[in-house]
Amino acid sequence: MTIVTFLSDFGLQDDFVGTCHSVIARIAPDAHVIDLTHGIPPQAVLQGAVVLQNAIPFTPVGVHLAVVDPDVGGARRAVAVQTADGRLLVGPDNGLLMLAADAAGVTAAHELADPRFRLPNVSHTFHARDIFAPAAAHLAAGVAIDELGAPVEPGELVRIDVPDPEVGRTQVSATVLVVDRFGNVATNARRPHVEALGMKSGDRVEIRLSLDRYYALVADTFADAQPGELIFYEDSYGLMTLAISRGDAARLTGVVLGDEIRIAAE
Amino acid sequence: MTIVTFLSDFGLQDDFVGTCHSVIARIAPDAHVIDLTHGIPPQAVLQGAVVLQNAIPFTPVGVHLAVVDPDVGGARRAVAVQTADGRLLVGPDNGLLMLAADAAGVTAAHELADPRFRLPNVSHTFHARDIFAPAAAHLAAGVAIDELGAPVEPGELVRIDVPDPEVGRTQVSATVLVVDRFGNVATNARRPHVEALGMKSGDRVEIRLSLDRYYALVADTFADAQPGELIFYEDSYGLMTLAISRGDAARLTGVVLGDEIRIAAE
Amino acid sequence: MTIVTFLSDFGLQDDFVGTCHSVIARIAPDAHVIDLTHGIPPQAVLQGAVVLQNAIPFTPVGVHLAVVDPDVGGARRAVAVQTADGRLLVGPDNGLLMLAADAAGVTAAHELADPRFRLPNVSHTFHARDIFAPAAAHLAAGVAIDELGAPVEPGELVRIDVPDPEVGRTQVSATVLVVDRFGNVATNARRPHVEALGMKSGDRVEIRLSLDRYYALVADTFADAQPGELIFYEDSYGLMTLAISRGDAARLTGVVLGDEIRIAAE
Repeated sequence: MTIVTFLSDFGLQDDFVGTCHSVIARIAPDAHVIDLTHGIPPQAVLQGAVVLQNAIPFTPVGVHLAVVDPDVGGARRAVAVQTADGRLLVGPDNGLLMLAADAAGVTAAHELADPRFRLPNVSHTFHARDIFAPAAAHLAAGVAIDELGAPVEPGELVRIDVPDPEVGRTQVSATVLVVDRFGNVATNARRPHVEALGMKSGDRVEIRLSLDRYYALVADTFADAQPGELIFYEDSYGLMTLAISRGDAARLTGVVLGDEIRIAAE
Repeated sequence: MTIVTFLSDFGLQDDFVGTCHSVIARIAPDAHVIDLTHGIPPQAVLQGAVVLQNAIPFTPVGVHLAVVDPDVGGARRAVAVQTADGRLLVGPDNGLLMLAADAAGVTAAHELADPRFRLPNVSHTFHARDIFAPAAAHLAAGVAIDELGAPVEPGELVRIDVPDPEVGRTQVSATVLVVDRFGNVATNARRPHVEALGMKSGDRVEIRLSLDRYYALVADTFADAQPGELIFYEDSYGLMTLAISRGDAARLTGVVLGDEIRIAAE
Repeated sequence: MTIVTFLSDFGLQDDFVGTCHSVIARIAPDAHVIDLTHGIPPQAVLQGAVVLQNAIPFTPVGVHLAVVDPDVGGARRAVAVQTADGRLLVGPDNGLLMLAADAAGVTAAHELADPRFRLPNVSHTFHARDIFAPAAAHLAAGVAIDELGAPVEPGELVRIDVPDPEVGRTQVSATVLVVDRFGNVATNARRPHVEALGMKSGDRVEIRLSLDRYYALVADTFADAQPGELIFYEDSYGLMTLAISRGDAARLTGVVLGDEIRIAAE
C-alpha cells in the first residue's frame, strides 16, 4: 500500500476533494490517501507551501499531491518533483511544492504531459481531477516519474519567496504566515530573530499592529499565561506565534494573512 | 475491497458522518469509504442530486450512499437502486439518487425493509446511521439487493425536476444550481443554450441579476481574463458558470441557490 | 487491521488532523483511522465528552483517540484508559474520555510517559501529534497499555460534570449541550424528565429562553410537524432536543452552548 498525501485549497463543501479521491481509487485501488488539509485559503499559494513544508516531515514517504492553482488552464506547468529522501511531489509549478522540495533537495522533475497518465478528457478548470490526481495515482501504482513527461531542470522550477522578518535594533518586523482554527497567528519570525533582541521566556513584549498596541508574554505554552492573556511563543513548527490562552488572538487583533506585526521589548 | 462513496448534507462539525463510517466499518470492515462531500446545503435535495450526478462517473463502480433527507421519519421510502453499469445507489426515495441513476439506467430498486440489514434500534431522526449506512455496508459485504426488501417499480421512484433554462431570442434565463467554495456560480445552462444565441469564447455578455447588471467575458478558463474580471465559462461538469478570475463571484453579486440569472449579448 | 477513531476540536482548516493521520500511518500502517468529528467547538471539553460518549457505542472496538486539550503543555496528565468492553481510549486527563469510559467501566489506566511511544521531539503545544497520536498508533500496532507508562488509579482520573436538568412542578430547566449543523439544539434533558411532567407526543409546550417564549410540539420526528414549526423531540442519542421542521432552531432562537432552556406545559 502506497501513501498519497493530499493538500489543497478546495475546502470540503464541494465534491472537489471526493472526486479526486475517487479518481485515485480507480487508478490505484491500494493507495492510502491522507488528507493533510483542504483548508488552505483560496488561491493562497504561499500559505499552502508553508503548510506543506511544515507537515511533510511527519508524513510517510510517498506521493504528495498538492493543489493551490490560481492559474489553472493557463501557461503554468504541471509537474512531479522527486526529492532526495525518496518523496514524489505532484502539483502545479507555481512554487507550492518547492519549500518542501528544496528543504529535502530536488533530484528530478518532470512535466505531467503524457496523456496515458491523465484522464481522457482534460477540462480547462479542474486539473486536480484530470491531471494531478491521475499522475499521483499512477506514481502510487508504480509508474516511474520519467514516464510522465519531459524532464524539467530543477533550477527552472518556479520558486516562491517567503518574506524574511526584519530584525532592527529594538524590534522585529514580521509577517503573518498562517492564522489557524484557534486564532493563533503564526509569523515568519523564528526563535533566533527574537533572541537576537534579547527576548526570552517570561519577558513581556509590545506587539504593534498598524496603530494598535498590545502586550504579550513570551512563553513556552498556553499554560504559562492566565486565561485571556496574550502570549508570543514558538509554535510546534518553529514559527513565532501570537496567541491568547483559551482565546482567539486573530479575532481580538483583527489580523489577517500577510499583515505586518512588529514585536518590541516592552 | 469494495468502494462505498458517501454524500450528504451533514457537514463535518458533528459526529453524523463519523458515526456512519463507524457503522459501515462494523458491518463491512474491508469496505473503502470515499466521502464525496458532506457539504450539500442542509436539506437541498436538488443540489445533492446534481452533485451526485456530476461526481459519480469519476468514482469506481461500487455502492453509493447518499443522504439528504428532510422527510426523515416520515412516509418517504428508503431504497437501493441498481444501475445498468453495476452501481448500487442507497438513500431516501426523494429524487436525490435519480439524476445519477437515470443517467445510467435503472435496472432494479428495492425498499430497505428487512430488519436484518438495519441497526437493532431505528431512531426517528437518524436513518443514515440506522438504515442507510447499514444497507450500504451489507451491500458492500456481498448481500444481494433483492434481500433488502420488496422490489420497487423503477418508474415509481420519486424523481426531482431540474429546471431547464429558458432560451429566448436575445437572452438565456438560467437558474443557479451550485455555488462552490470559490464563489463560482454554476447554472443550469449548458453550452448549447449559450451557443444558440451565438455567444462564443471571447464575446462579452451582459449578466442580469434582479436589478443588477454586470459584464462578463465568455471564456474557456480563468487565465483568459484579467484578475478581477467576471467570466462566464463551461465548468468541468459542463455547467455554464459565472466566476471571477482570482475572485469570488457569489460574494460580488450576492447570488444564492435558486436565483435567476439572465445572460444576454452585450 | 485495527480501528483508530479520532475526535478533536481541531477543525479541518489546518493540517492538525492530517498531520496526526500521518503520524499514525508511519507507526501503524495497517490502522484504519475513522474521524468521528473534528468539529467540537474549540476547547469545549464537555461537549467533546458528550459527543464521544454518544458516538462510541456505534464504533468498532478499537483505539479511540480524543483531543480537546486547553491545558496542553501544562500539568494535566496524558493517559490511556482501558474499558471493560476492550476499548482503549487515549487523550488528555481532563474528563474528555471519562463519560464514555465510565459508561463502559474502566479496567485500567496508564500515563503516556515512555519516550519510546512519543515522537522524538515533543513540542509544548501540539501533544496530539507528539504524544497522543503516537500512543494510539502504538496501541493499534499491538503495544500493551501497561508499556506506555505508570498505572493511574481509575478513581483518580479527572471527571467532568454534566449538569443535570432541574425538574420542577411545572417546568424542566435544561442546559444546551450540543448545537448541530442543522441548528438542532440538544439539551441535557431526557425523556423521563419530560414525562415526569406528564408531557407526551402531540402536546404543545412552552419553551422559555431568557425573556423569550416559543411554543413547540412534542413530537417523534420532523415529519410530525408543519415546515417551520418548532418541535421538541428525543434525538437519536436520547437527548431532548429543540428543532424546527425544515428550519434552524438555533438561528431562530439565538441559543448557544450552555444556555438554559425551560420547558413548561402550555
